[in-house]
Amino acid sequence: MKSYNVCLKDTVKKFTKRLFYALFDSEQEEAYGEYLEKTFLKITSKLDIDNGKAIWESFKSELPEIRKILDLDAIAFENNDPASHCLDEIYMAYPGFHAISIYRLSHALYKRDVYILPRMMSEYIHGITGIDIHPGATIGESFYIDHGTGIVIGESSIIKSNVKIYQGVTLGGIQVSKDLASTKRHPTIDDNVTIYANATILGGDIVIGKDSIIGANVWITQSVPENSLVTYQTEIKIRPKKNGIR
Amino acid sequence: MKSYNVCLKDTVKKFTKRLFYALFDSEQEEAYGEYLEKTFLKITSKLDIDNGKAIWESFKSELPEIRKILDLDAIAFENNDPASHCLDEIYMAYPGFHAISIYRLSHALYKRDVYILPRMMSEYIHGITGIDIHPGATIGESFYIDHGTGIVIGESSIIKSNVKIYQGVTLGGIQVSKDLASTKRHPTIDDNVTIYANATILGGDIVIGKDSIIGANVWITQSVPENSLVTYQTEIKIRPKKNGIR
Amino acid sequence: MKSYNVCLKDTVKKFTKRLFYALFDSEQEEAYGEYLEKTFLKITSKLDIDNGKAIWESFKSELPEIRKILDLDAIAFENNDPASHCLDEIYMAYPGFHAISIYRLSHALYKRDVYILPRMMSEYIHGITGIDIHPGATIGESFYIDHGTGIVIGESSIIKSNVKIYQGVTLGGIQVSKDLASTKRHPTIDDNVTIYANATILGGDIVIGKDSIIGANVWITQSVPENSLVTYQTEIKIRPKKNGIR
Repeated sequence: MKSYNVCLKDTVKKFTKRLFYALFDSEQEEAYGEYLEKTFLKITSKLDIDNGKAIWESFKSELPEIRKILDLDAIAFENNDPASHCLDEIYMAYPGFHAISIYRLSHALYKRDVYILPRMMSEYIHGITGIDIHPGATIGESFYIDHGTGIVIGESSIIKSNVKIYQGVTLGGIQVSKDLASTKRHPTIDDNVTIYANATILGGDIVIGKDSIIGANVWITQSVPENSLVTYQTEIKIRPKKNGIR
Repeated sequence: MKSYNVCLKDTVKKFTKRLFYALFDSEQEEAYGEYLEKTFLKITSKLDIDNGKAIWESFKSELPEIRKILDLDAIAFENNDPASHCLDEIYMAYPGFHAISIYRLSHALYKRDVYILPRMMSEYIHGITGIDIHPGATIGESFYIDHGTGIVIGESSIIKSNVKIYQGVTLGGIQVSKDLASTKRHPTIDDNVTIYANATILGGDIVIGKDSIIGANVWITQSVPENSLVTYQTEIKIRPKKNGIR
Repeated sequence: MKSYNVCLKDTVKKFTKRLFYALFDSEQEEAYGEYLEKTFLKITSKLDIDNGKAIWESFKSELPEIRKILDLDAIAFENNDPASHCLDEIYMAYPGFHAISIYRLSHALYKRDVYILPRMMSEYIHGITGIDIHPGATIGESFYIDHGTGIVIGESSIIKSNVKIYQGVTLGGIQVSKDLASTKRHPTIDDNVTIYANATILGGDIVIGKDSIIGANVWITQSVPENSLVTYQTEIKIRPKKNGIR
């Protein structure tokens, strides 16, 4: 039976954790800079990726830019969440921020045509946060995710700036056959859109126009003009309880 | 660029794990008592919290009381879940019980005006269980959570005794501006209420009356009198399949 | 106060991880074979399970068969997901495959009347993936799970071959009293059924007939004939935005 390098999961986990620490803490960066490079080269070599050294240098040179964009994300979190007490809390204890951080790092590798490593990084953070952002997604500035468990953002999604997304939201595909894998399968979300909990938006040709609000639990497979409010009328019955719910 | 103490995540993770072990296993308590105190003081010092020693002593003196309340929670689990085989299984393998344990510990610190540390503890267990209980929530005795993935319980929620909550339930806020952060933003759930999977209850002035049952997928932004049954009529169509789901 | 062996969680976590690695990587199998046996015996001894050695030998002899079935699952993943780039990626970075692997291993122990250990294994992988498959469930060949966060598959569920399940799907029970714990409480899903995101199917006497498609968000407490399409008509309102969503 074929052997798979599954224990690389552990290596990628430690690498991704250290990379996150180094990005936000200069002491960690100094202490683990060498480890990060060595481990990156080890991983790329195990994954038969040529040119690991050049990819690392190029990736490393983008880190300060990634850090700047993440600082903007953190400010968006601070502004949007009434429960946040200070900016430090965002960096230390917000799973949405953690997930966006690893997404921005994995996306930088994905753009350099590295594939399995960023997917392993995205699954590492999916495992911790329940937030599943494919490294191929394109996400603009000041992105805010609240709570986050259950969020799915597909590979060819495009999210512009100042977008807010709540737990359980799916930006997904209508099931397509394998030969359509390289087409745009996931929606586009324009500037300043808010998508409330458990809304599902499906399809590669769908555009949610800017400044729109998508209500909770809404199921959308059509485009929405800018400045729309999309809601989902639930009719609930409140009555005296007798026996059970069936 | 500013450095953040992000690698404290690791320290808090180990601390919280050891604290949970010590709470339920006297051998662990003996073996790690000193470690727990030392690590608590290290964390509070890194977070610029004054008075770490006094907070630790006071927190430590509450642990036997927390343990007693958790033993009541465990009994509620054993009574409510037909799949549980014995009480040991609750302590060893129930994510809902694990999440409630860390919530009760983090809440004890939150009450002592420690803030970022309990939030990091709640994110540690959110990461493991998918259950996001803010340390500020107020939760009564004999609380039962089944499965749990996707549950969100906001900071100012009040949950009384004998409440049962299933996976995906949100006790959340209607979005408010930052200056309303200190008002009650999340609902109150009275005694003996059951809330089935994926129900969403939003708003700080909402009260779910005692002995009520909230059906799955219900979306509520109004109060409900005691002894109510709230359901959500889904109309499904069953028909012979032709092609696809769109 | 009674002590519980809660720190066994850590031992089971390492054991389960190493078992997964050994199953797919012959080098790991060689390096950790002895560790796996020793740790299994330690765990079963702590859990007061008689006959640990005989259970281990019998379990070990089933591993090549489990590996073969998992290789079929991996092929189902590769065929079903347009986003997958190669078979390696399934083994390295798919949480659904990871969860099915640990399920098949835990189920083999459950069949041998070991109970708490497989439940701890299932909670270990539930913690990583958000996918909660009870070790008692019966699942056929070529099972496919996409994304997976929030999936719940109850103890007495029966899933036949070539079934596909998306994130947030529940195969659950109608609440029953504790004395009905040993009856079939969860549904049966026949061959070639697809169940889209967040659908909920409840009840032990429910059968979803073969070749059926269950649409997203559908809530089912009745059986469905084979070759059905079950959908859930959501009516959304799209209108110009004024103020807020209430």
